[in-house]
Amino acid sequence: MRTLIKGGTVLSATGASPADVLVEDETVAAVTAPGFLTDADHILDATGKYVLPGGIDAHTHMEMPFGGTQSADTFATGTEAAAWGGTTTIIDFAVQAKGSTLTATLDRWHHKAGGECAIDYGFHMIVSDVNDTTLKEMETCAEAGVTSFKMFMAYPGVFYSTDGEILRAMQKARETGSMIMMHAENGIAIDELVAQALAAGRSEPVNHGLTRPSSLEGEATARAIRLAQVTGAPLYIVHLSAAEALSAVAEARDGGQNVFAETCPQYLYLSIEDLARPGFEGAKYVASPPLREKRHQADLWRGLRTNDLSVVSTDHCPFCFKEQKELGRDDFSKIPNGMPGVEHRMDLLHQGVVAGEISLARWVETCSTTPARMFGLYPRKGVIAPGSDADIVIYDPNAKQVLSAETHHMNVDYSAYEGFEITGKVDTVLSRGTVIVSPSGFSGRGGHGKFLPREHCQYLT
Amino acid sequence: MRTLIKGGTVLSATGASPADVLVEDETVAAVTAPGFLTDADHILDATGKYVLPGGIDAHTHMEMPFGGTQSADTFATGTEAAAWGGTTTIIDFAVQAKGSTLTATLDRWHHKAGGECAIDYGFHMIVSDVNDTTLKEMETCAEAGVTSFKMFMAYPGVFYSTDGEILRAMQKARETGSMIMMHAENGIAIDELVAQALAAGRSEPVNHGLTRPSSLEGEATARAIRLAQVTGAPLYIVHLSAAEALSAVAEARDGGQNVFAETCPQYLYLSIEDLARPGFEGAKYVASPPLREKRHQADLWRGLRTNDLSVVSTDHCPFCFKEQKELGRDDFSKIPNGMPGVEHRMDLLHQGVVAGEISLARWVETCSTTPARMFGLYPRKGVIAPGSDADIVIYDPNAKQVLSAETHHMNVDYSAYEGFEITGKVDTVLSRGTVIVSPSGFSGRGGHGKFLPREHCQYLT
Amino acid sequence: MRTLIKGGTVLSATGASPADVLVEDETVAAVTAPGFLTDADHILDATGKYVLPGGIDAHTHMEMPFGGTQSADTFATGTEAAAWGGTTTIIDFAVQAKGSTLTATLDRWHHKAGGECAIDYGFHMIVSDVNDTTLKEMETCAEAGVTSFKMFMAYPGVFYSTDGEILRAMQKARETGSMIMMHAENGIAIDELVAQALAAGRSEPVNHGLTRPSSLEGEATARAIRLAQVTGAPLYIVHLSAAEALSAVAEARDGGQNVFAETCPQYLYLSIEDLARPGFEGAKYVASPPLREKRHQADLWRGLRTNDLSVVSTDHCPFCFKEQKELGRDDFSKIPNGMPGVEHRMDLLHQGVVAGEISLARWVETCSTTPARMFGLYPRKGVIAPGSDADIVIYDPNAKQVLSAETHHMNVDYSAYEGFEITGKVDTVLSRGTVIVSPSGFSGRGGHGKFLPREHCQYLT
Amino acid sequence: MRTLIKGGTVLSATGASPADVLVEDETVAAVTAPGFLTDADHILDATGKYVLPGGIDAHTHMEMPFGGTQSADTFATGTEAAAWGGTTTIIDFAVQAKGSTLTATLDRWHHKAGGECAIDYGFHMIVSDVNDTTLKEMETCAEAGVTSFKMFMAYPGVFYSTDGEILRAMQKARETGSMIMMHAENGIAIDELVAQALAAGRSEPVNHGLTRPSSLEGEATARAIRLAQVTGAPLYIVHLSAAEALSAVAEARDGGQNVFAETCPQYLYLSIEDLARPGFEGAKYVASPPLREKRHQADLWRGLRTNDLSVVSTDHCPFCFKEQKELGRDDFSKIPNGMPGVEHRMDLLHQGVVAGEISLARWVETCSTTPARMFGLYPRKGVIAPGSDADIVIYDPNAKQVLSAETHHMNVDYSAYEGFEITGKVDTVLSRGTVIVSPSGFSGRGGHGKFLPREHCQYLT
Repeated sequence: MRTLIKGGTVLSATGASPADVLVEDETVAAVTAPGFLTDADHILDATGKYVLPGGIDAHTHMEMPFGGTQSADTFATGTEAAAWGGTTTIIDFAVQAKGSTLTATLDRWHHKAGGECAIDYGFHMIVSDVNDTTLKEMETCAEAGVTSFKMFMAYPGVFYSTDGEILRAMQKARETGSMIMMHAENGIAIDELVAQALAAGRSEPVNHGLTRPSSLEGEATARAIRLAQVTGAPLYIVHLSAAEALSAVAEARDGGQNVFAETCPQYLYLSIEDLARPGFEGAKYVASPPLREKRHQADLWRGLRTNDLSVVSTDHCPFCFKEQKELGRDDFSKIPNGMPGVEHRMDLLHQGVVAGEISLARWVETCSTTPARMFGLYPRKGVIAPGSDADIVIYDPNAKQVLSAETHHMNVDYSAYEGFEITGKVDTVLSRGTVIVSPSGFSGRGGHGKFLPREHCQYLT
Repeated sequence: MRTLIKGGTVLSATGASPADVLVEDETVAAVTAPGFLTDADHILDATGKYVLPGGIDAHTHMEMPFGGTQSADTFATGTEAAAWGGTTTIIDFAVQAKGSTLTATLDRWHHKAGGECAIDYGFHMIVSDVNDTTLKEMETCAEAGVTSFKMFMAYPGVFYSTDGEILRAMQKARETGSMIMMHAENGIAIDELVAQALAAGRSEPVNHGLTRPSSLEGEATARAIRLAQVTGAPLYIVHLSAAEALSAVAEARDGGQNVFAETCPQYLYLSIEDLARPGFEGAKYVASPPLREKRHQADLWRGLRTNDLSVVSTDHCPFCFKEQKELGRDDFSKIPNGMPGVEHRMDLLHQGVVAGEISLARWVETCSTTPARMFGLYPRKGVIAPGSDADIVIYDPNAKQVLSAETHHMNVDYSAYEGFEITGKVDTVLSRGTVIVSPSGFSGRGGHGKFLPREHCQYLT
Repeated sequence: MRTLIKGGTVLSATGASPADVLVEDETVAAVTAPGFLTDADHILDATGKYVLPGGIDAHTHMEMPFGGTQSADTFATGTEAAAWGGTTTIIDFAVQAKGSTLTATLDRWHHKAGGECAIDYGFHMIVSDVNDTTLKEMETCAEAGVTSFKMFMAYPGVFYSTDGEILRAMQKARETGSMIMMHAENGIAIDELVAQALAAGRSEPVNHGLTRPSSLEGEATARAIRLAQVTGAPLYIVHLSAAEALSAVAEARDGGQNVFAETCPQYLYLSIEDLARPGFEGAKYVASPPLREKRHQADLWRGLRTNDLSVVSTDHCPFCFKEQKELGRDDFSKIPNGMPGVEHRMDLLHQGVVAGEISLARWVETCSTTPARMFGLYPRKGVIAPGSDADIVIYDPNAKQVLSAETHHMNVDYSAYEGFEITGKVDTVLSRGTVIVSPSGFSGRGGHGKFLPREHCQYLT
Repeated sequence: MRTLIKGGTVLSATGASPADVLVEDETVAAVTAPGFLTDADHILDATGKYVLPGGIDAHTHMEMPFGGTQSADTFATGTEAAAWGGTTTIIDFAVQAKGSTLTATLDRWHHKAGGECAIDYGFHMIVSDVNDTTLKEMETCAEAGVTSFKMFMAYPGVFYSTDGEILRAMQKARETGSMIMMHAENGIAIDELVAQALAAGRSEPVNHGLTRPSSLEGEATARAIRLAQVTGAPLYIVHLSAAEALSAVAEARDGGQNVFAETCPQYLYLSIEDLARPGFEGAKYVASPPLREKRHQADLWRGLRTNDLSVVSTDHCPFCFKEQKELGRDDFSKIPNGMPGVEHRMDLLHQGVVAGEISLARWVETCSTTPARMFGLYPRKGVIAPGSDADIVIYDPNAKQVLSAETHHMNVDYSAYEGFEITGKVDTVLSRGTVIVSPSGFSGRGGHGKFLPREHCQYLT
């Protein structure tokens, strides 16, 4: 089966060229001068549109267990929503429960996702329980294509690892070439502030932000960097939200350490003012790290330009306002942590292009090419090149849309971006050569998406 | 005319894929999966080899007047040597003499280079004389495709501009979107140290290095950055050689300022110990900034990895040891400043890949893609993509060679890298679709190379 | 003659103790427990008051020639005003005119000040003309007790020295142990901005500030520090006004370099908003560096606390509004640069104590002890200790006063601090044992003050 | 009783003056010009010698329980040894055992020290157990003159506090104006490295150093600073030994935060090479933080000059080689942590004056005046001024001595400085007016020393 995408402007991490793309079955067969090839089973007209490698969201949490409930998107609904938004790969997190093994965890997640996903997917592994067995299993995971391991400096009693446990896992990561991903907030100090707030009767959602000051993200980020330095492990800071953390990352990177960071659209566009919305509205914006004071936004955009922030992911972890977010109506610390976003990342960052915050090349780089290189998927993903999977988005840069819970496809009853006006919109999405989104709607299916065993990070030196 | 390059591994700034490349006349017509196309007038077998965009050397000085003599390579000999080394574009410097106009200067350089070059070429303009006329002419130059203007904080009486003149030129650059390139050494202080050394009878070549301390490059770099900040102009530091200068650049870049820098192979591989070679041997290594203490080399390699150094160019400016370098036998300050190198840049940086200093992608990025984007040539140059000029190098990563004046093609009687053993060697070079270097030798011709009018820098925000 | 100051709280750079002070003739004979001595010719009751070492103003310009006029205070009027304000030593600047020698300059200043001063005085030497003769004369000056040499990076054609000249003078300073004092503004760039402003018809006083941006003070400060590093000379930045300059100083000091800085009360209390006062009022506030945006003030106070700013001096250089400041009514660049202040430094900084910005010990340290140690006058000056000159201020910390041109004693027709309310006021001032100011008024005389030959800085390592 | 110290040079934190000192009973009655007073019961001739305020060692551990043994000096032997070395005040640590109260702890330490000490003494409180009761007791302690509270980021299970506990104690310190003192090493990560070393059979003393890398002191220091920033508490880093930690302190101080640090002589003079001495010799040098690579020494001396290190104390905590250090013969982690030093601090730092590392004024400041001001003892201690306690040292700057276990007075069977040649030696020591050390020996007595209730730190802003 041959599909020819013609007349568009093909984007890459370094720029744009008018070109046609020929897809043969699941992969790209050729990128050619416009009109060079004419023969195909199927022709997609991309005139006036961008043709870019499908988005890669390296940080999602589909149907993730959290405090007795689970995130509202299943692998089925979540990956369909992703596809609608131009994302053709997610890397989701398998979550080790304390006491279980990594192998069993991975099996369980394969079971959850297998046969459900509309797009290709990989896994990172959350290590909650560091011991001789799990450290050994990190090797097994890597061999099974799970080459990145997330740890938490927050959430004591749940995901929290001590600095000693982090050290051990980092030593193993160094040994095996794997990546340590870090949720960097000083959860021990934060939990004290949370307890004090609750004891003082400050129970509204905004206290979620007030008890997690940006300086404690800065602290934990710096600490993780030091531990990585001691052990020689590569380190990837997830969902960086604070200027102080960015400074720590920039300093380490200037020194040549293998330290990387991602941010998320919510930190670029939303703020603690949303957390402080009247009534219980703020609960919609509860995620960790929390939304920050607006002044951090300019720093984060700058970080995206300077590459101190290399990746944009979503930390998609939706909980419905009804029944889920409401669990914390009387106690902000009981509000499930997480926000929906997998569907809007490509649009929100294209809006950054429109606003002059980043270049077109940087849009593709932060949202597709770099995640692929960072997590061992390149050149299978992240680029439109011969032999690469034909994960391709045709994007109309001039279309207008308004984001809303009424129109989005994520399985959640509110939008964090309700009413946002966006210039640019997905036109067509191919996943491994199959059109799964087109102007006439979603034509994909659960189970089309395959598991992606991953190589190691390609930025290490 | 169709040429098919088949069986190779195509490199880009983001990675490598096995692919074939079809060249039609002067441009790339298609990049395809291996074996996808078979029909061509001419087939080049690249099996086991890299296929990469031709190198772009953004800093050369062919037949440059200097102190009564001129650099030893003409545009003809220099561009042929460049081709031998896998470089398919140079950006040379038109040099305004005090009192002349930029327009006349540009005419003169067009006259010198026109019909002579084996590969494509562009010009930067050296502004020696800042006044209302020349400032106005910066606009004319930009319209004529010369969008970058070099100034000197050294060489008083010759190229030197005062901070006030720099400020004015930067204001104009900001206004027109042009780039200011800066030779950043505090020449006023240096000339005092030079005079003191000579007065004290210290006349040997090593004093060239001792009188130009790295801290005075750091100072000038920081000063240029401040002036750029005041005016809002983009700034590109040429031939950065010193850790102190790198720090200043890194700090500015962390802050999001439009500041960029290049280094050169001589600063990565050679040191002040070469300048101190016995007899008059050191004269071969006299260039400005001077070769530094060895400790700077690790910093520069790190800078290439962190992208605080974005480009590798050569500052190719050869003077023969006999008769030219010898002008300074009794007075190091009379030794013509400059070293040969245009032929060896791609090899020396590939050696950095072999040594694990940089990745393969970074090799292509620093030597080809970024120079193209930095100086407004992308995607015409700097990438193998449909529609791009077919400037392509087939490179054998396993071949061995030894650099030597006996075998090099530059018109100079010594090699700064005499005896260096290199892994990797150019196999074949295409310039705009024409094979100009092949295993059987140089098949290009002077005059094949065309002038490249350039757009503005593509990194500005 | 014995004078006993009893009942007060004696202050030093490290704290406060209740103690009596016995003065015998010109020096301190004893500091004792309260009531320990009772016998004296003269008893001064300091109950409820501070007894502190007389203020040392290390930066004044009495009767200084400037653009055809001269500063409005003579040595006679200026030192009397200083005494009124609790300052018992000034270090004024002898100003070399281009073409003259340092020796002749020093003679001339001895002639001007000799027999005129109400308090003791020393000289720094402004070096405007660097050549073999003047460099040699730096040695003579040091032997004559003038151990500090001021240079200018601003005012081309008048005081400006090139970086080469600065380098030479610094080498000599290093050799002789002398201090280089630097007016650090990039005057070359500034003059270009000034010319542009005037050409554009922007002639009001506020343009004095707008054409001298703080970043160009930061630049020059960093440059001076680098030159000092290259030469090994100690460096003292005069009248530091900008956060950017403070950063450069702090960084150098962290690294252990012999770099010091002073600020002045006008930068702590006034701002560019004063320069922008309607009509020609702003002319009263024209000095260089200019008054800055208010945000710099908090940084400067912090610098005083951290000792990155070690000294507070006034840069007292008064010009009357009538006839003098008015010279620039149509052209801000013609407004004589300088502001009055020698009388108010101790009060304005005590106000900083009252406001909690600095401690009492730090008040004494920055205004008296450190200037004495910095400029080789300690322990003769700067401390109340046996054998020290009895330059003593009895200060009432609870008195209230309002600053005004109507009540001040400086020979200038306006006050930069008109209407400022101050808590604290000088009660009595002794200069070398003689009461020269008391509640009943000024009882000193011109000619009482002696020239102070100075040793070298006591902070060098 | 009147004692006249005549003919000497009196030192202070700002300089030196020839002066006589009259002591009346326990305090200083007068400081006078030489020869001003002649009448006294007792005359001490200080001709050719320094007269300085007695040393204050703000960090000692007398008879401290540690791992089943206790430090070898009692309050009696330790304070006598201190007196021999010119130290007239110690501030020792009361050590809360987990489960006990601060009040009971303080009582117990009063009991231990009461009637035993040869010199005056104060207490800091080590808080091992943070809870509502102990937090409340911090107020009681402060009222009882114990205004500083030490916490540990190392030694889990013994002294270790979590970041949450540190946060709570800091909040209380902020509220009461008390100081938090921090042992800043990441003990959680370190204990993992220790376990790994032991598991690998690396049991020799040098592994004590290898398992406690300087970067983990840097990390903990930065973390403590962040927590202090979040809470607003003043912070004092004890026994800073690592360049990385110094950088963190310097950065915080530049920013105006109330952060202070001390270092100890062992970090200035000894290194990990001592820990690596053959056989079990290295055990003599086991203390925490460990002795570092020699390169840190220059940084620490620089820190003393720049005041980023404000205090020199000893962390005196002696354990005999026999029977005590030997507990760890087969396992370095069982070697009691601590080194003797209270007797040699003044001499070792005077040696720094002789070597040109610090000035005479800085010697007095870091060893006496600043500790007094830092810990609320000034002007009772730390200065020779009327009304101050007559804690005075007459010091012969020209005497020579060799340090040795054979001649020292500490109750420990080895010297960490065996064979060190020192220029300078204590001649006579007065404690509150009583001569306790003279050329004829120790004439003090246990019980002469009194407990010193302390005010708050005098540097806070």
